[in-house]
Order: sequence, then C-alpha cells, then structure tokens
Amino acid sequence: MYLCYDLGGTNIKAGLIDKSGHIHNKKNIPTQVEGNLEGVLQQFKDIADRMLEENSISKEHILGAGLGVPGFVDMEKGVVTTAVNLGWHDVPITKRLAEYLPYPAFVINDANAAALGEMWKGAGQNYRDLMCITLGTGIGGGVIINGTVHNGTNGYAGEVGHIRVKDHGRRCNCGKTGCLETEASASALAFYGEKAVRDGVATMLADKMKDAGTITSKDVVEAAAFGDAAAQEIVNQAAYYLGFALANMYMVIAPGRIVIGGGLAAAGDILFKPVIKWFNEFSLTEIKGEEIIYPAQLGNDAGMIGLARLVDLNLKTL
Amino acid sequence: MYLCYDLGGTNIKAGLIDKSGHIHNKKNIPTQVEGNLEGVLQQFKDIADRMLEENSISKEHILGAGLGVPGFVDMEKGVVTTAVNLGWHDVPITKRLAEYLPYPAFVINDANAAALGEMWKGAGQNYRDLMCITLGTGIGGGVIINGTVHNGTNGYAGEVGHIRVKDHGRRCNCGKTGCLETEASASALAFYGEKAVRDGVATMLADKMKDAGTITSKDVVEAAAFGDAAAQEIVNQAAYYLGFALANMYMVIAPGRIVIGGGLAAAGDILFKPVIKWFNEFSLTEIKGEEIIYPAQLGNDAGMIGLARLVDLNLKTL
Repeated sequence: MYLCYDLGGTNIKAGLIDKSGHIHNKKNIPTQVEGNLEGVLQQFKDIADRMLEENSISKEHILGAGLGVPGFVDMEKGVVTTAVNLGWHDVPITKRLAEYLPYPAFVINDANAAALGEMWKGAGQNYRDLMCITLGTGIGGGVIINGTVHNGTNGYAGEVGHIRVKDHGRRCNCGKTGCLETEASASALAFYGEKAVRDGVATMLADKMKDAGTITSKDVVEAAAFGDAAAQEIVNQAAYYLGFALANMYMVIAPGRIVIGGGLAAAGDILFKPVIKWFNEFSLTEIKGEEIIYPAQLGNDAGMIGLARLVDLNLKTL
Repeated sequence: MYLCYDLGGTNIKAGLIDKSGHIHNKKNIPTQVEGNLEGVLQQFKDIADRMLEENSISKEHILGAGLGVPGFVDMEKGVVTTAVNLGWHDVPITKRLAEYLPYPAFVINDANAAALGEMWKGAGQNYRDLMCITLGTGIGGGVIINGTVHNGTNGYAGEVGHIRVKDHGRRCNCGKTGCLETEASASALAFYGEKAVRDGVATMLADKMKDAGTITSKDVVEAAAFGDAAAQEIVNQAAYYLGFALANMYMVIAPGRIVIGGGLAAAGDILFKPVIKWFNEFSLTEIKGEEIIYPAQLGNDAGMIGLARLVDLNLKTL
C-alpha cells in the first residue's frame, strides 16, 4: 500500500492506494498554508495516522509515499525548486518528510502526477507518449515520453499555461502577457464572463452576477450550453486559443494522445467540440484532433493514482 | 566504416565515415529525381563503388549504411511513409537498398539525422534533450529526448515548419496558412525581399533584383547587415516568428539546447540576436534564450555525421 499526497495551494488530497491503483481510502483537507512547510508536514503525518487507524493498517504495510506539488520539482534530488502558491523555494521535501514519516518518499510536479495517472488507469492507457493538460485556476501540463515523465530543463517541460497565444493579451501571473492561461483557464472564463456583464453585453450571466456578485467558469459553461450567445462566444474564444496551442504543441512531440482534465474539462462537448475544430484548423490535414484529444477519465483522483504509480516504479528501480 | 547518404530533393550528400565520426571521403551529386526510386538506388550503389575504389577500401570494411530522407519515416520498419519532394509513398527503403548494397541499412528523417549529428559532435554535445531546427527552403526539425530521436505519431514530432505563427498568413505548401515555414524560411526571406521591391519600398534589394531578376535569402541578409532598413525589417519579422515559435516549443519539452542550422543560419548574429530577443520576450522571465539557442556547428555535414551515429547505435543494439 502507498500513501499518496496531492498537495495544492487550497487542499491536500490524500489517499491509501494499493499496487494495482485501487484507492482504499481518501481524504480531502484544507492546506494549512499559514504554518508553511512544518505545518504541511505535520498535516501529512496526521492524515497518515488517521488513515492507517481508520483502515486498521499497520505501518509495515506502507511501502512508500508519493507527493505531488504544484511547482517545479527536481525529482532525482527530491527537491521542490519553486512552488509559488505554497511560497516554497528549494525545499528538500523528501528529506524533510522523512522526519515525519518513516517511508521512502518521492516527489513530482502535480500535473506530471496526473499525467502518470491517466496513462496508467485513465484516458492515456496503451500510449507511451502522452500530454496531459489541466484546465483549472491556471493551466498546467505534464509530458510523458516513452512511458517516462519528461521534466525538461528546470522542470519547464509541459508548462503550457505560459505558451503565448495572443498579442496584446492580458497580463499573466507570470509577468508576461497573452499566455494561454489568461485566455483559456477556468479563471479566464470567469473573467470574461464578468467582463461581458460589466460591458453591458446582453447575457443571462448578468442575472448570475446580480445574484452571486461574481461569475464562475461553470456559470459561463452552463449559460453557453443553455444557448446564451455571449457565453458561447467566451467558450469559443477559449477553445480557439486551446486549439491553437494544442496544435502547435502537437507538432513538437506528436503524442499518441492529448488528455485534458481539470475543473473546466467537465464542460464536456461544449468545450471539446470547438477545441477539436480549431485544433484541426491549425494542424496538417492528415492530423485529426478527434483521434488525439480526449477528456481525462480519473477526475480529481488522477494525481493520487499517478503518485501510486510513481512510488511503484521508483521502488522497483531502487 | 559506414556509408552515409543524406538524400535531398536536389542533391545527394554521401560520405564514408568512421566510428568516431571522422569523414574520410564525401561526395555531393545531383539527385536523379526522374528515375525515381530505382534511379536513386542505382546512384547510391554507384557512389559507394566510387568511394570504396578511390579510398582503396574493401567491402568488408563497410559495416553498415545510413540513409537520411526528407520526409516521414518509420525507422523500425525501415519504411519511408511520405517524402513529398521525392514523390515517395510507403517505400520499404532499407529492404530495397539491400538489393543494391550488401550492408545492414537504417533510415531516418533528415532533420533527425542532423539533430543526432549535432548532439554527437556539434552544438548539442553533452545534452540529452535537444531540438534542432533547419532553416532552408523549408523549415524542418528534429527532437531528441533522453539521447534518443523522438519521432512521435507518424513521425510528426519536430515538424515545426508547420507550427502556426500568423493569422491571415500566406498559403503554405502543406495547404494551411500562416505556418512558420512561410514566414521564417530562406524562401520566406527571398519572397519578402522580392515583395518589398515589387511594392516599391526603398531598398538596395531593388538593384539586386534588376541585376539578377530574383532575390535570395542571402541577398536579404547581406543587405540587412549593410544597414538596409527594409531588409532589416524582413529579417526582424522572420526572427519575431522564430522567437515566438521557439519560445512556445520550449514550454513543451524544455530541451537543454535549441540548435539552429540550415542555409539561413549562416546569417549569424544578424538573425540570432533578434531571434533570442523575441524568444526572451515570449518566455518566462527565468528562461534565457542566450543560454539555450545556438547555431549548428557541423554545417552540411551534420546529417551525414548523424547518420554514422545512427548506424553505430543500431549495430550495437542488434
């Protein structure tokens, strides 16, 4: 059995997962950001104690721990180079974790963990080359080449949220403008939804805004599905930039599949159909997006399942 | 000793190369396109006979043959799937070559051969992840991940000439519009040079056009180096689109180096400086183009040297 922690800026998803990828128990608790590193490490230990107790599992049955982090990771050294949302810089996380938990531990970028999960048990099964894109508050990505996570220099591989897609675009958190993340993430849809209302565009989102004081990407997707023209335009714009970015990524590594997950992927056809249409528009004629682009299958569990896979692969090669 | 053939639509570059990458003899002869496949195979045999005779080398000293082809290649099967310039489709080239030459033969896309060459003996030494871009009549690319050529689905990986960089761009040979190839290849520079003259722009290229009836990319680069504003604008536009495409490619695989070769790379700083400037403009702040983007070092020999490496690696694993 493996202990897996998918660490986010908001929540820690934790799971007890066996070698075959089956999840025996999972927890979702708010990340204790204030306490910083020590606080999070203590949370890891507390969750482990609780899960072992609740499942009557003894420590000897835990063979290793996997940790997914939203940031740049040096997997070999077990160091988190930078995790902006956590405020971590050059944290020797596997070494530190060893002070709290007596298991061999392995760390990986969270998007890469999700990619490993989808390759093992999800939409990427039977493919050796895979690209996974996560459409959430930001846009992350994981690249698997020949069955192995490809990190690239300083872990930059797959950081597709910062692919430039638009001239004179909005300012991104990264400091640049026109990044994919500012045009096609869940936050981007929410932003453009609110903007439409503020600009006085005729849209049912105006009522949402009046009721809730804010608009979410889910509101925009639902309005688009309902036939709201302004919302459809926002979704189509996001799909345009996604199709553009995915087509260009494809020409670099031509993976067997591009798997799209994250909260926004729940939109389904209303997002995937135009993404595939634009992907085809921007790709060589022979390349068919409908054979390449698929929604992720594992939802929020992809990361944890990928972490179990990571631990499993690493223990085998130790 | 290995027999290496870098086959182009215009010329066959052939070489006798030893295991350490040293070229003992090379030939450059026009490709006999009319005779199609049989004609080319006969040329391969004739060149081999001549080179062996001129160097007093007996057949027993040739351990294998490597073949670089401008098109899509299934390396494992030894099949050229499509080579537009040669008019080849699904040609089982290594099997056919065996009827003419009694050596184990291996085939690879020409841009991938050049990438292998630059990794072995050129600008990519000591790097395991490498991207090589060739700026010629078209724009090709080779991707090496973890020391191995990465072909991707149907050999599409690295086909970066068809990355979309411009809305409402010119029609490309591939049928799409706004491809990198139509904006930043040697032909693109020549096209925009002639266009400037036709449009009556004040430029020293007008005299070139009057004298030669045509303008080459070399003319444009030379005029730019001389200070001609119109030519500088053309080079800068090409550099802009290259910088854009390279920055976006980098976020996919983050290779240790991006090596740029091909005829246009001979332009040197006048091209590389703005390419790096635009690359940095479009990349995360921490990513420095001047540490990543380098001119190829092996010139026209890159392909042949890479082919020797290919044969060497393949014979070792046979």
